[in-house]
Amino acid sequence: MSQTKQVNRQFLLASRPVGAPVRADFNLVETAVPAIKEGEVLLRSVYLSLDPYMRGRMSDAKSYAPAVELGEPLVGGAVCRIEQSHNPDFVVGDWVVAFAGWQDYAVSDGQSLLKIDASLAHHSYALGVLGMPGLTAYMGLLDIGQPQAGETVVVAAATGAVGSLVGQIAKLKGCKVVGIAGGAEKCRYAVEQLGFDFCLDHKSENLAEQLSKACDNGIDVYFESVGGKVFDAVFPLLNTKARIPVCGLISQYNATELPEGPDRLSMLMGTLLVKRIKAQGFIVFDDYGDRYNEFSEAMGEWLSDGKIKYKEQIVDGLENAPSAFIGLLQGENFGKLIVRVGPDNLQ
Amino acid sequence: MSQTKQVNRQFLLASRPVGAPVRADFNLVETAVPAIKEGEVLLRSVYLSLDPYMRGRMSDAKSYAPAVELGEPLVGGAVCRIEQSHNPDFVVGDWVVAFAGWQDYAVSDGQSLLKIDASLAHHSYALGVLGMPGLTAYMGLLDIGQPQAGETVVVAAATGAVGSLVGQIAKLKGCKVVGIAGGAEKCRYAVEQLGFDFCLDHKSENLAEQLSKACDNGIDVYFESVGGKVFDAVFPLLNTKARIPVCGLISQYNATELPEGPDRLSMLMGTLLVKRIKAQGFIVFDDYGDRYNEFSEAMGEWLSDGKIKYKEQIVDGLENAPSAFIGLLQGENFGKLIVRVGPDNLQ
Repeated sequence: MSQTKQVNRQFLLASRPVGAPVRADFNLVETAVPAIKEGEVLLRSVYLSLDPYMRGRMSDAKSYAPAVELGEPLVGGAVCRIEQSHNPDFVVGDWVVAFAGWQDYAVSDGQSLLKIDASLAHHSYALGVLGMPGLTAYMGLLDIGQPQAGETVVVAAATGAVGSLVGQIAKLKGCKVVGIAGGAEKCRYAVEQLGFDFCLDHKSENLAEQLSKACDNGIDVYFESVGGKVFDAVFPLLNTKARIPVCGLISQYNATELPEGPDRLSMLMGTLLVKRIKAQGFIVFDDYGDRYNEFSEAMGEWLSDGKIKYKEQIVDGLENAPSAFIGLLQGENFGKLIVRVGPDNLQ
Repeated sequence: MSQTKQVNRQFLLASRPVGAPVRADFNLVETAVPAIKEGEVLLRSVYLSLDPYMRGRMSDAKSYAPAVELGEPLVGGAVCRIEQSHNPDFVVGDWVVAFAGWQDYAVSDGQSLLKIDASLAHHSYALGVLGMPGLTAYMGLLDIGQPQAGETVVVAAATGAVGSLVGQIAKLKGCKVVGIAGGAEKCRYAVEQLGFDFCLDHKSENLAEQLSKACDNGIDVYFESVGGKVFDAVFPLLNTKARIPVCGLISQYNATELPEGPDRLSMLMGTLLVKRIKAQGFIVFDDYGDRYNEFSEAMGEWLSDGKIKYKEQIVDGLENAPSAFIGLLQGENFGKLIVRVGPDNLQ
């Protein structure tokens, strides 16, 4: 069924995935649309963002954010329309970004809602290029990566929501940009549309060799969001004083145990030492939430000047969120993955 | 034989150590005292510094500095007296710090010599608390570690040349300091003399448990110079937003192969990510040489105010340098290890 005014469809966490999530880990239920109290608003999700970090929230391993409890709705950012308001700061018809989760309706006291500029042509952009992935790319690359003109920046998941922006911002800063992506089509897009200097297919057998050839002056900034084989190819090419913003490790999210040895932990630390490398993890809203306006201004200008290109893959219908998310972890999406949960105006 | 005016004793690298260096890797030869040309000075070594980084220079693995060639003198910093000068900037009797190596005499064009303040009571301090180890402790802790009052700082090799200063500076900054050192005597010294809050013996079987108890609020800064078992004990206790200045990995320097698996590389990266940790290697003179004066002023004041204590272990005679160095890599020294190569005034 589609979104209605009477029913709140919710995806609850049915079981914690072992390895890759499967459809049975998500339980679709129908509940009543919640009632709101004084000071609250009723949110209706129109666009739901699907992002790799959600895999972490499905596990109960200690992490930076609490896990979703079994039987609770999956979490996620969404572009929502205010359908009812008992809060003087919001009127019916306002558009906001909210951490509303995988469901049609949510209640908020208004505190953590971010209003969307009415002039924004694509409301869904608030979940991507102008939202969390955009801020992640901007701050991770510029604040931690500190790219200098002429340096070589390598970005994994190069056509993903974050990676595609990292590479384009690095080009705007005068860097040589080498992307790594899955498959020839994505690689072609990165070079022809996004303007990367090279883009290599991580599925090819001689990735390390190709990367070494593309990065003939070594690697100064590696924007890490993948890990695994991609990091192994990058690692020996890192230059003295290289910077590694650690944004994600998508290749490891479904791992159930540590890889076989030898144990390269001390080798990694030794390389940080002798090459004087900085590796730094970050969680964008915790570390850089206070610099959202700076980002938003810069990115808004690049977008309107046509200097940044942005691609979305919009999946229709909340019921398709689990399969789209499972595919995201396999790299099947092409561009920022968004679920169209309901229409702009629900009759 | 002792130092003379006629002979230049030199320790040459006879063979590259496999694992721990042995005496046969060092070859003591006697050569002529070199002659100097216009613009040059003749340096006579009085104090030779022995430091863990020298182990790296004995290997031909790619590192931040070129390896010592077989048959060449071992490298090292020394406090030297100018014995002859054809350079207008130096007169006979001047004292300098030079990268003069494991030998009695060296020639310099004056470019990289650092004059020692005539008022310095202990000339050898220019190789320790006021030299490279001091600058390493100061910059690694303050610039990379950024300790805040009330935070917990853990320092490995806690009574070593660098570690003892790291801990004392952290105390001056209002931190709780937990040292890790080898043996009860060193640990007692760290607490009773250096003022650390705790110091744990890395030879004890339950180091991880003791460390967890001592760091009841987790670890905010870990000054890494050891690696191996010590890092393993520190790793699970690192707090969100922890900083790891990576200064050395002495436990690994004699390693001939990687440890057995599982491979924890991705686990380390994953922890950097979810805890938003910064790990950063540094090589002090390359990264912070231009801030020597700032350091020198601060440290000089702390020393003269009695706020920083400093301990040297002075070994007599160049001929004893190899065994002292071999012991250094095993943690046998207690305080900054210095070789007294010759007298202040050689008759």
